[in-house]
Amino acid sequence: MEVGQVLHMNAGTGETSYSNNSHLQKKVISMTLPIIEEAMTNLYSSTSPSSLVIADLGCSSGHNSLFVVSELIKIVEKLRQKSGHQSPEIQVLLNDLPGNDFNTMFKSLPSFQKNLSSQLEAKDAGPYFFSGVPGSFYGRLFMKKSLHFLHSSYCLHWLSQVPEQIENNKTNIYIASTSPPNVLKAYYSQFQRDFSTFLKCRAEEMITGGRMVLTFIGRKSEDPTNKEAPNSMWELLAMALNDMVSKGVIREEQMDSFNIPVYTPSLSEVKSELLEEGSFSIDRLEFSEISSSTYYNEYNHSDVSEIAANSIRAVAEPLLVNHFGDGIIEEVICRYKEILLGHISQEIIPGITNLIISVTKK
Amino acid sequence: MEVGQVLHMNAGTGETSYSNNSHLQKKVISMTLPIIEEAMTNLYSSTSPSSLVIADLGCSSGHNSLFVVSELIKIVEKLRQKSGHQSPEIQVLLNDLPGNDFNTMFKSLPSFQKNLSSQLEAKDAGPYFFSGVPGSFYGRLFMKKSLHFLHSSYCLHWLSQVPEQIENNKTNIYIASTSPPNVLKAYYSQFQRDFSTFLKCRAEEMITGGRMVLTFIGRKSEDPTNKEAPNSMWELLAMALNDMVSKGVIREEQMDSFNIPVYTPSLSEVKSELLEEGSFSIDRLEFSEISSSTYYNEYNHSDVSEIAANSIRAVAEPLLVNHFGDGIIEEVICRYKEILLGHISQEIIPGITNLIISVTKK
Repeated sequence: MEVGQVLHMNAGTGETSYSNNSHLQKKVISMTLPIIEEAMTNLYSSTSPSSLVIADLGCSSGHNSLFVVSELIKIVEKLRQKSGHQSPEIQVLLNDLPGNDFNTMFKSLPSFQKNLSSQLEAKDAGPYFFSGVPGSFYGRLFMKKSLHFLHSSYCLHWLSQVPEQIENNKTNIYIASTSPPNVLKAYYSQFQRDFSTFLKCRAEEMITGGRMVLTFIGRKSEDPTNKEAPNSMWELLAMALNDMVSKGVIREEQMDSFNIPVYTPSLSEVKSELLEEGSFSIDRLEFSEISSSTYYNEYNHSDVSEIAANSIRAVAEPLLVNHFGDGIIEEVICRYKEILLGHISQEIIPGITNLIISVTKK
Repeated sequence: MEVGQVLHMNAGTGETSYSNNSHLQKKVISMTLPIIEEAMTNLYSSTSPSSLVIADLGCSSGHNSLFVVSELIKIVEKLRQKSGHQSPEIQVLLNDLPGNDFNTMFKSLPSFQKNLSSQLEAKDAGPYFFSGVPGSFYGRLFMKKSLHFLHSSYCLHWLSQVPEQIENNKTNIYIASTSPPNVLKAYYSQFQRDFSTFLKCRAEEMITGGRMVLTFIGRKSEDPTNKEAPNSMWELLAMALNDMVSKGVIREEQMDSFNIPVYTPSLSEVKSELLEEGSFSIDRLEFSEISSSTYYNEYNHSDVSEIAANSIRAVAEPLLVNHFGDGIIEEVICRYKEILLGHISQEIIPGITNLIISVTKK
């Protein structure tokens, strides 16, 4: 499977779209905003730029990509008013894989820009320019030394490909407690290759002094088989698929050869790649947790499982359909929902650990 | 009607898509290639850039936008090999209105890039970066002094809006021999406003010495009611619509209030705007004709009317559907085809006059 050609969040604005099922991702961006603001403030005060190029990598489609962009623009506008400078021209580069639904995002831009203007008090703010940049961030996307600020949220846990030679991961679809050691090793090696490639590419594209804030799903424990989410999310999905194998709906070989191109690194694994690559100085490297109680308090159990099932569908449907065909998707999601509901009643759904990295290009 | 939100070429790659019905547009780009090559050669030899930003305005979706881009890249590669320089990084900016089908174009990029690499002999050619820029070119699209080369083919005859106060254009949908004088004046004023805005915006965005090559449909005669194409194309479409009014399928008021946001200027009208705006020196300003015999020789009459009807559908369907609803489109196109066939048999279909402008930013 070519991940770059298959992986994308569900398109459009319908019931199963990513746009309508990415509340968690928005919560994460909101939590990261103080760190984004700190990084932008440091960048602005050290350079007072007359033009500013901002990239959002893995922007997907829908409210989230433009949400972080609008926050970034407001931060810049506040900074320049405080400093008494003229408003810089801002170029916003929205990147995702070529299969992403750019059309939906582009169509929402005119009203987004209108709303933004009405929110910004100054009449001389802007102008702002928007582009879509299709391509994998595990390769070069932008010209040399062209970026001032780079943001990416909830993308870098996706690998460029499913690790090779993990056919013996049988009933699992990601690293699980029953995964053989070679599977753990293969996943980690793939992460190392991908993350160091990511850093090398960005190092070429960013100006000296440029800032980069990355958020993605990681793990607290050094042991990758630890029962933290999102492992458990994938383990629950594996349960749903295995149920369908035992019912004869999915063939065993099909299940054996399906693995998810994801890796959730620990802080020390991320730090070691950053130090090894060497182009960035680390301003912040920390984790934050979204505890499951956040959801339990807001919704009832059945709503939580509905939301979670829709979220995983919005994210994983293209991968599932590519491998198993589109006949199975409704049943997988339905079973996933039931299994999840059982776990929620027993309150055994762990929270999600997010890694947040804020770095400066040396 | 907000032209910026309604106007777009038919999406996708199906039978009625613009992608499959834009042979004429490709022919025009091919005819313009020597002028594009001349402009790029002059730019390259005067600047020997280590990076090059190229924009294609009104790129639409399908083969054509990437066709001109691949030709431009080949020209640059030939020039840099001849000069013994390192290959410049090239940023390609593909612009169209937000309703354009960018998704289809973006999905074709990976295979396009693979083909391009295999066509370029040098292994050190590139890298090339691609972005989509959604927005109207009758406003700013890019940052100040950021563009080296700008190309636009078959777009600038589209106006930013239908001229105001032309309700008395009754049975016509564009300037026709029976249009009252105020209609001619309103269309021309709209063209003047739009084209001068276009030039002002591009003047801000281009570097000094940057080159711009524009091709669009114009007219040879100073009289805009002259029976040249594409007037006649719109006149034939008006006939089809009027037929449907007389059959009661379309209401008369609906027909009266429908006008196409197009203007096909003469060379002197274009020249006068260029001189008035003053930021560009004119390298070339000429017209070329595609005679109808080009088609008569290649295809039989019925094929010609089929091709022409599909072409006008690919271009005008969103405008027609927006105004009349989607129930009428099959019948309009079918009637258009019949009317056209009648005209072809009588050999009274004129050729198309293209204006070609090659200018340098002062």
